[in-house]
Amino acid sequence: MKRIAFLLVAVATVAGIALTLPTFGNSNEQADPLFGIKIPSGYRDWRLISVAHEAGNNNDLRAVLGNDVAIKTYREGKLPFPDGTIIARLAWAYTPSEENNKVFGRPQSFVAGPPINIQFMVKDSKKYAATGGWGFAQFTDGKPADAASLKTCFLCHEPAKASDFVFTHYAP
Amino acid sequence: MKRIAFLLVAVATVAGIALTLPTFGNSNEQADPLFGIKIPSGYRDWRLISVAHEAGNNNDLRAVLGNDVAIKTYREGKLPFPDGTIIARLAWAYTPSEENNKVFGRPQSFVAGPPINIQFMVKDSKKYAATGGWGFAQFTDGKPADAASLKTCFLCHEPAKASDFVFTHYAP
Repeated sequence: MKRIAFLLVAVATVAGIALTLPTFGNSNEQADPLFGIKIPSGYRDWRLISVAHEAGNNNDLRAVLGNDVAIKTYREGKLPFPDGTIIARLAWAYTPSEENNKVFGRPQSFVAGPPINIQFMVKDSKKYAATGGWGFAQFTDGKPADAASLKTCFLCHEPAKASDFVFTHYAP
Repeated sequence: MKRIAFLLVAVATVAGIALTLPTFGNSNEQADPLFGIKIPSGYRDWRLISVAHEAGNNNDLRAVLGNDVAIKTYREGKLPFPDGTIIARLAWAYTPSEENNKVFGRPQSFVAGPPINIQFMVKDSKKYAATGGWGFAQFTDGKPADAASLKTCFLCHEPAKASDFVFTHYAP
């Protein structure tokens, strides 16, 4: 039993996966099963980094917010992001606005509809060394995504290595 | 001459237009010529209300931010917005992201490109009584829009009377 526990810790350490208790979020919320991240409290009050529209299967409007460390780093333009950085991505259904279209006189207005999910990137260069120093989390209606889904996060972010694995640029 | 000045003040008062010095923004910045509004300092640090995509002639991605009074009112859901509310609308060019599309494997990603302009709605029920209690401003690269353009703001916002002339709903 002792050997199994040792092996589990060794594997987790090599993989850079956190077995420890999560360091973010409210204690009564579920943690991300792969990186141990909870929903950071107060994230909805964070400042705006940028906005985007993902068409295709996503079909969302999204806002990317950052905690103070993230915003400071973006504005100073000095990469890599330091430990403690958290970037939040909020996505809502891409929804035509009948109300706005009436005023514009044409179907041109798309607004944020119901929330789809929220994602977080948490920088901890030691804890998440195996994934570029970043831990990834996704929550749908407060529930974390499963480990299998979360394993794909870093694969998609790897091409953005030159910008410390972050795709979003700061919008002035 | 005295009579002309009196008439101007009288007309401005009836129209609810401010002739006084602007109350917001940095002193070295130009004021909106119709409502006397300057760019509110620190507005880029305000919290997010929602996001949108205006297609058509606008072709922008936009974020709507609010000062503390605006955010509090939105979250409490109690209209009308009190005096002191400021709502900011930031618009950037709707721009395909080659970098993101490579990762998605399809042309689906649109991000905030160069800034187009910023707009503000400032609530002052006395000062702006003739326009629903709101003053309107628009700045392109720091320069205010002319009075003729600003006169059209309230006409478009009038249909949203039920939501205190504000179109944007809060995105959770």
